[in-house]
Amino acid sequence: MTRYQHLATLLAERIEQGLYRSGERLPSVRSLSSEHGVSISTVQQAYHILEDSQLISPQPRSGYFVTQRKAQPPVPQLTRPVQRPVEITQWDAVLEQLIAREECDVVAFGSGAPDVTQPTIKPLWRELSRIAQHQEAELLGYDSVYGMRTLREQISRLMLDSGCVATAEDILITNGCHEALSIAIRAVCEPGDIVAVESPSFHGTMQMLRAFGIKVVEIPTDSVTGISVEALELALEQWPIKAVILVSNCNNPLGFIMPEARKRAVLNLAQRFDIAIIEDDVYGELAYEYPRPMTIKSLDLDGRVLLCSSFSKTLAPGLRVGWIVPGRYLDRALHMKYIVTGSTSTFAQMAVAEFIRNGNYHRHLRRMRQHYQRNLDVFTCRVRQYFPCGICVSRPQGGFMMWVELPENIDIVPVCCALREQNIHIAVGSLLSASGKYRNCLRLNYALPVDASIEAALRKTGEALSYVLENA
Amino acid sequence: MTRYQHLATLLAERIEQGLYRSGERLPSVRSLSSEHGVSISTVQQAYHILEDSQLISPQPRSGYFVTQRKAQPPVPQLTRPVQRPVEITQWDAVLEQLIAREECDVVAFGSGAPDVTQPTIKPLWRELSRIAQHQEAELLGYDSVYGMRTLREQISRLMLDSGCVATAEDILITNGCHEALSIAIRAVCEPGDIVAVESPSFHGTMQMLRAFGIKVVEIPTDSVTGISVEALELALEQWPIKAVILVSNCNNPLGFIMPEARKRAVLNLAQRFDIAIIEDDVYGELAYEYPRPMTIKSLDLDGRVLLCSSFSKTLAPGLRVGWIVPGRYLDRALHMKYIVTGSTSTFAQMAVAEFIRNGNYHRHLRRMRQHYQRNLDVFTCRVRQYFPCGICVSRPQGGFMMWVELPENIDIVPVCCALREQNIHIAVGSLLSASGKYRNCLRLNYALPVDASIEAALRKTGEALSYVLENA
Repeated sequence: MTRYQHLATLLAERIEQGLYRSGERLPSVRSLSSEHGVSISTVQQAYHILEDSQLISPQPRSGYFVTQRKAQPPVPQLTRPVQRPVEITQWDAVLEQLIAREECDVVAFGSGAPDVTQPTIKPLWRELSRIAQHQEAELLGYDSVYGMRTLREQISRLMLDSGCVATAEDILITNGCHEALSIAIRAVCEPGDIVAVESPSFHGTMQMLRAFGIKVVEIPTDSVTGISVEALELALEQWPIKAVILVSNCNNPLGFIMPEARKRAVLNLAQRFDIAIIEDDVYGELAYEYPRPMTIKSLDLDGRVLLCSSFSKTLAPGLRVGWIVPGRYLDRALHMKYIVTGSTSTFAQMAVAEFIRNGNYHRHLRRMRQHYQRNLDVFTCRVRQYFPCGICVSRPQGGFMMWVELPENIDIVPVCCALREQNIHIAVGSLLSASGKYRNCLRLNYALPVDASIEAALRKTGEALSYVLENA
Repeated sequence: MTRYQHLATLLAERIEQGLYRSGERLPSVRSLSSEHGVSISTVQQAYHILEDSQLISPQPRSGYFVTQRKAQPPVPQLTRPVQRPVEITQWDAVLEQLIAREECDVVAFGSGAPDVTQPTIKPLWRELSRIAQHQEAELLGYDSVYGMRTLREQISRLMLDSGCVATAEDILITNGCHEALSIAIRAVCEPGDIVAVESPSFHGTMQMLRAFGIKVVEIPTDSVTGISVEALELALEQWPIKAVILVSNCNNPLGFIMPEARKRAVLNLAQRFDIAIIEDDVYGELAYEYPRPMTIKSLDLDGRVLLCSSFSKTLAPGLRVGWIVPGRYLDRALHMKYIVTGSTSTFAQMAVAEFIRNGNYHRHLRRMRQHYQRNLDVFTCRVRQYFPCGICVSRPQGGFMMWVELPENIDIVPVCCALREQNIHIAVGSLLSASGKYRNCLRLNYALPVDASIEAALRKTGEALSYVLENA
């Protein structure tokens, strides 16, 4: 970091902390220069950076002032979903969402895709190239139904970072976290069963439940601390629930990391009511805190947690490489893996294994965590700037998803349609609810670096939301 | 083909046709030389080839004689499975089979793997290398739930060879034929339903049916003409059957190609009883006849046939690239694809698409058809030589699977165990029956070129079968 970048960061922090208040005049260039023992031009460059990020603005012949800004919007309250088992619908809306992501030149705020353009991903291409040049005939043959041992060994090591001890024998490789979740649900549930889910929760998982003829009870969930343990307990007392499905770290869509005490409380409940926990950790390695948060799986002594994950969010979804650690359900999971796809593409598995083995994965993770955290700052700033007052916004602790909530009487489905005509694609919250709630919410993907088109799209989205709020 | 190879082939044909009978003296080298207008040494070389393949044997000072041979074993009779819906078991045996295929230095007669060592597969590696070098970020992102358009377009063209007109929009890419079948079954059936299958039939499909809680009625099947239309009709009259699953071309395990009239008859029955047909065409392009046989799908006007296929048998199973043409079940199949794996590995899809586009796939297919047909000749010869009298052997019309049947009172499960200790792995027929029939049968994979170890393994298998027959 250069001197002027360092100074800019320092000043930005002071502004964030309120040491310089909104509208207040900042120290003169000369006084800052002597205070910090840096040159005049260094201070000027620092002020230019802050000006570019719209934290400060110059006034002719008066110096720099902290920009008049709206206050940070509050976080969403605890959700209040329907408190009984419901059937999942919404497939048509999900399909529309999937098709929208394939359109060209669309700003895909609604997608679940990570940024795959960072330079630290380059070694993955080199591994693929090397594999193609080596021409090992073995890679063309049927892989083990467990997946390649070399990759399972690498994953076993990775999992230690989350406090989880799993050997290569405990791990099955899957076609992304999608297949892992599909296997987990099928390994634990029968058609007609009931499972508990966070509310809101990932639409993909809910569509799986729908296809398997499973009903869900949506549990109230806090945007900072996660699923309500009290509400989960009540639901477990009331309904014959088979399993609870959680994204405990860097939740999709709310962004929270469940505090350790809450993770333990949920595990205790699962033990008391003898149910399984399906833990989706696909965003866990993208937590902004270091070391990464632990999983519920790492606390699990009796094998009731089925951990599902993949390299789709951390590395690249096109690889379709994920895994499941099914605990005591290993035999059933193995059968499911066999009947669903038989095995997983060997090339992608091999490339990922080598990418990890050569230290490139951890390097890439560091980069991506920084990148997403920086993007979150920029998006938060823009949302504050462009989006209307009266909204609530989540404070993601990892990953690249933001949840925006408007007053409950607002329906943003028409806003989505209007924005789509301007090639802006947002995901309406109701996709993430079994009972079609959260039509006043939206999920915002902030994975991509903010360029002019994203900047413009955020502004247009803010305008559309303001319009609907003013005319409600 | 050189002159002496041509002559050897001609003579071998005459022996097969019975123009020269077992034990009969062949024409002298001199007379053949003048008859065919070739040199003495050409005839001598041709005779050496026939001697090497044990068709003829020299007797000192008397010339060459047609080898005294056992007669070609008869083909298996129409199977007679249980005529009522049964639940499928056998998972433990299938799993054992899957694990056996991973062992080192095993002669895997029991596997379903193709030969991936032929030189015509090399361009596939080059495509993979080229893709890795181009580094298109798009390949790292989420693929369409339909699969890559460029591959679907190529498949659409390939399907014309089987008389089937399907556009890219009618095709979904899957993780191998396995996922295609899994999707097809789930798109058509609900738990508790009944489907009709050939008997014997592919154990993978049956395990899927088991996992989905579906019962099967096994229909008597002829090793030359396929499923009995009469028996299928009776079953349809008697039970509320939802679908029939067929490997109509180069059947696994019996090797037949259903005659066109029978394909039409089955389709007519499906129309009359308003059921779906799930057609597994994964071996169809490996038919020894040219042009390749048509599919039932190509006759299907009302979209009731779900065609499932892949590049796993024709190219390489490690790719995990297959497809489904689900006809009128497209919407349901799309949902199933989404909930099972979401999408398919992009690298493998891209490599296959380019491999086809550059004409390498058709070149490879020609090579593999010839290779498997030649291997069939060698295996048939060895089976005749080493295996005991009193067995029946199928006459595969494509693919690389042979079905061997011993008398019904014989149980070859202990033979399998004994052979496995000698690193020879055969698949007992009962794996391919829902009701555990065919313990007197085995399926033999003849994909690999016959080398010394395969030769020895065939001999040992023959000895073990002879032993059990003699001691029955």
